[in-house]
Amino acid sequence: MLREAIYHRPKNNWSYAYDRETVHVRLRTKRDDVAQVTLIYGDKYNWHVVGSQSSEMKVFAKDNLFDYWQAAVKPTFRRLKYGFKLQSGKETLWMNEQGIHEKEPENIYIYYEYPFLNPADVFEPPAWVKDAIFYQIFPERFAKGDPAIDPENVETWGGKPTPSNFFGGDLQGVIDHLDHLEKLGINAIYFNPLFEAPTNHKYDTIDYLKVDPHFGTNEKLKELVKECHSRGIKVLLDAVFNHSGGRFPPFLDVKEKGANSRYADWFHVREFPLEVRDGVPTYDAFAFEPHMPKLNTENGEVKEHLLEVARYWIEEIGVDGWRLDVANEVDHQFWRQFRDVVKKANPDAYILGEIWHDSQPWLGGDQFDAVMNYPLTEAMLDYAVRGTRDGRQFADLVGYLNAAYPQQATEASFNLLGSHDTPRLLTLSKGDKRRMKLATAIQFTLSGTPCIYYGDEVGLTGEQDPGCRKCMEWDETKQDQELFRFFAELVKLRKDHRALRDGSFEVLQSEEGSKSLAYAREADGEKFIIALNASKRKATVAIPVEKDTDFQVVLGEG
Amino acid sequence: MLREAIYHRPKNNWSYAYDRETVHVRLRTKRDDVAQVTLIYGDKYNWHVVGSQSSEMKVFAKDNLFDYWQAAVKPTFRRLKYGFKLQSGKETLWMNEQGIHEKEPENIYIYYEYPFLNPADVFEPPAWVKDAIFYQIFPERFAKGDPAIDPENVETWGGKPTPSNFFGGDLQGVIDHLDHLEKLGINAIYFNPLFEAPTNHKYDTIDYLKVDPHFGTNEKLKELVKECHSRGIKVLLDAVFNHSGGRFPPFLDVKEKGANSRYADWFHVREFPLEVRDGVPTYDAFAFEPHMPKLNTENGEVKEHLLEVARYWIEEIGVDGWRLDVANEVDHQFWRQFRDVVKKANPDAYILGEIWHDSQPWLGGDQFDAVMNYPLTEAMLDYAVRGTRDGRQFADLVGYLNAAYPQQATEASFNLLGSHDTPRLLTLSKGDKRRMKLATAIQFTLSGTPCIYYGDEVGLTGEQDPGCRKCMEWDETKQDQELFRFFAELVKLRKDHRALRDGSFEVLQSEEGSKSLAYAREADGEKFIIALNASKRKATVAIPVEKDTDFQVVLGEG
Repeated sequence: MLREAIYHRPKNNWSYAYDRETVHVRLRTKRDDVAQVTLIYGDKYNWHVVGSQSSEMKVFAKDNLFDYWQAAVKPTFRRLKYGFKLQSGKETLWMNEQGIHEKEPENIYIYYEYPFLNPADVFEPPAWVKDAIFYQIFPERFAKGDPAIDPENVETWGGKPTPSNFFGGDLQGVIDHLDHLEKLGINAIYFNPLFEAPTNHKYDTIDYLKVDPHFGTNEKLKELVKECHSRGIKVLLDAVFNHSGGRFPPFLDVKEKGANSRYADWFHVREFPLEVRDGVPTYDAFAFEPHMPKLNTENGEVKEHLLEVARYWIEEIGVDGWRLDVANEVDHQFWRQFRDVVKKANPDAYILGEIWHDSQPWLGGDQFDAVMNYPLTEAMLDYAVRGTRDGRQFADLVGYLNAAYPQQATEASFNLLGSHDTPRLLTLSKGDKRRMKLATAIQFTLSGTPCIYYGDEVGLTGEQDPGCRKCMEWDETKQDQELFRFFAELVKLRKDHRALRDGSFEVLQSEEGSKSLAYAREADGEKFIIALNASKRKATVAIPVEKDTDFQVVLGEG
Repeated sequence: MLREAIYHRPKNNWSYAYDRETVHVRLRTKRDDVAQVTLIYGDKYNWHVVGSQSSEMKVFAKDNLFDYWQAAVKPTFRRLKYGFKLQSGKETLWMNEQGIHEKEPENIYIYYEYPFLNPADVFEPPAWVKDAIFYQIFPERFAKGDPAIDPENVETWGGKPTPSNFFGGDLQGVIDHLDHLEKLGINAIYFNPLFEAPTNHKYDTIDYLKVDPHFGTNEKLKELVKECHSRGIKVLLDAVFNHSGGRFPPFLDVKEKGANSRYADWFHVREFPLEVRDGVPTYDAFAFEPHMPKLNTENGEVKEHLLEVARYWIEEIGVDGWRLDVANEVDHQFWRQFRDVVKKANPDAYILGEIWHDSQPWLGGDQFDAVMNYPLTEAMLDYAVRGTRDGRQFADLVGYLNAAYPQQATEASFNLLGSHDTPRLLTLSKGDKRRMKLATAIQFTLSGTPCIYYGDEVGLTGEQDPGCRKCMEWDETKQDQELFRFFAELVKLRKDHRALRDGSFEVLQSEEGSKSLAYAREADGEKFIIALNASKRKATVAIPVEKDTDFQVVLGEG
């Protein structure tokens, strides 16, 4: 057994409370190197009296280099002391906190510890999230309901989107088209920013407590939320707390008064006055964007203001959670306080971080419920759309991600195939609907909540921003109805079968160099086999099944 | 290069802010397998314009299987995107968040991120800690100053300690003997619990806001703290927050009234009434000890009470920090709030957790400043005293620990060779003072604050509790004065030379099977070479030095 490959470190994704009774323990070994791993465990205070217990671990994930093993145990007194026994052929090794041993260690003090399963430390995303199917709305471009509040210079609906033009989408428009969403079957909406801001994307907030007047009013949003709730649809808002907009009044004050402004400490100023030198602002900003000054979330007043914002929209307007823009650049301390405030306002609120990379430091139960799963996005696109990743490479990436986070984070993760920040799926697919459907079928049959980017379901196309932010197509004759039916069918399938939401996941076939891929999801006595072929040629997948199994093809095309 | 051995994961001990400007980045490779590792880094928002920078990484630690590499970088705009280039012979590999590559990746989005160096997230133990030398006092047994407050049935000073007897040690006794501590040179005291409790060890608190009447009064403690501070000595108290004592009034109330008690939720009751069945209490306790019921630190009132305790002794009495008993069994959420309260009361207060095992989950800057470094204790004893670990095995363990935590945690760690919970050092050494001195010399020449257990410095002996809790010897003719001078010399050496406190650490010699060991500490142009021999035979150690180096033997015996 390759000793250098064997890895475990208590807590994080390696040993964690899955719920208030159960601890998951994981171990990593070299791929296909170890035949059997046994978890040896007990209570450190009575081990010497009652001895230890053991549990066979199972390989629950694989990536290109490693196997990942897991066992679930329910320690009677919520304390867990544990070690591992590894076997391969005639070789047996024991592993604990002092490393790898060739004999069973007698001293239990050198075993690992999950010291106590305290409920406060259990990472519990809202239960509804793993059953949710999201729909992302870029409000300026979804639907126009109230021409009276159009911005100046509004252009004709359906025109060419530019970084700065307006088409007059608003909240009334969303209310007017909830039937479309209900027909599609989604049960949650993620809105790009709704608060007052000068741009069409509104990531440069002027007033965090006010719906942009071109979208409507706070009351209108409340009406929308109520209407959504009556249809069983949750509403998620975008919290842009990393930076304000350049017209945020405190920022304007610092710009005018410099160090003498009472808001001087609200931002990260390297040097007064606030200006741009050789393209670099004299203050921290999102990227080097002068109109997006980074907020000092360590300042007491800033914290108080933003936390009041977090509370207000949940408690007063009724929204069901927050998507956090540029979440990784804000301090962890702020997010911990944010979570306290949000969960106090509504314990069932969902906190979703925008993080494009490895996110474990935010997924310990003290900060976010989930992150936007961009690594999976890329893998789905590489496999199904770009053809740059084979079945084995795709399965490896899914295995790696499943092992990288606690199971409940995987179940609540936000799985997307495109957004306002990427080219549209159909465009990436070069108009090939089969590739688009392949990717979407994967998205809907993996753990984590899928999100449909507005318009993808009716065949909208568009390159990278601004192309991907074009107006929604409401002329039914111009909508791709066949595509819509495919999306609606997938939505229904997922909603009807728990196996596709939080069922077990097993890779059945994934071979190097092959574009075929098959995996199974199972729960409640139902098993789904998802067999995919990203190649242009026909392929055959052999799936071992038990005799007398009943089969039913629920979705598929040749 | 062995790919399975290569490990990095952002944050924790792998990439962290060392101070408000500097990020340490680390990588693990198989021992002696890789010739060169280069950190490639830049700002993700201007990488495409200004390109990347690079920094050669150095092996800063080794253990039995791995080399650990580190580089320190100061990102201009506090954002760090990075990857690794590894070289060995003709082989070159690149590593980033998507794994190991044989060609340099063009896409920087798959590089690792340390997204933003926010000051609030910097783990900053108090600066004084790495310069501190602690002295642990078990108050019932250190010195008797006020016979008027003796417990009933007090026994004659110096008698045989039992689990339940009393000798009348008190705070006045400590005040009376501060000259001894000043002569020894220590500059910090860690007190075992001082609060009202029925036992001699006082880990079963009755009143968290009151000094035990047999020790003195709150005012007397304030006087002691003042006197200590005037001599440059800090004072650390023991916070027993995991459990209360069986005579804690809220617990007595629940015992009497069961589920109807207004304190019913202050504890973790599995089943009413509170009783012991087959040796197991019907409520959670420390171990299975009925007289130490576990406190429900998620209950708002319990939290409020304990946080008030945390504040009171720091703000009102002036103590300099807390040692946290059974710290790992209390929820992380509580400790985060505890840190907020303590640091608000005194930003320079030290928070030290009692954790016997891997402690990374508590050392992220949001909870503790340090933990009691028991893994090092065992290694020092194995090498110097028990002879069960050779020089190489000792060096490997030190390397492993240095790599397991951020550098500032290592610098602030609490390094002990014995305590009220272990046999005394001289007893473990079977009376062989040379072994005791060898262990102590190591303790004083590694990073982390050393702690002397009261009486070790004058030759006190004692087996595991209760033997190790015997009365301090104040008869100078019975004190081992030669040992005292050795301790005082080590204390002075460490205090006089920064190299021994937070200087660099390098293993110069550590061979398998050899009891010899040599390492160097260096800072401020001074270099200390510590050459040790744990064997009974003479040994020679060859140390490469530059020509014309000035040598001075500062401590040693043949």
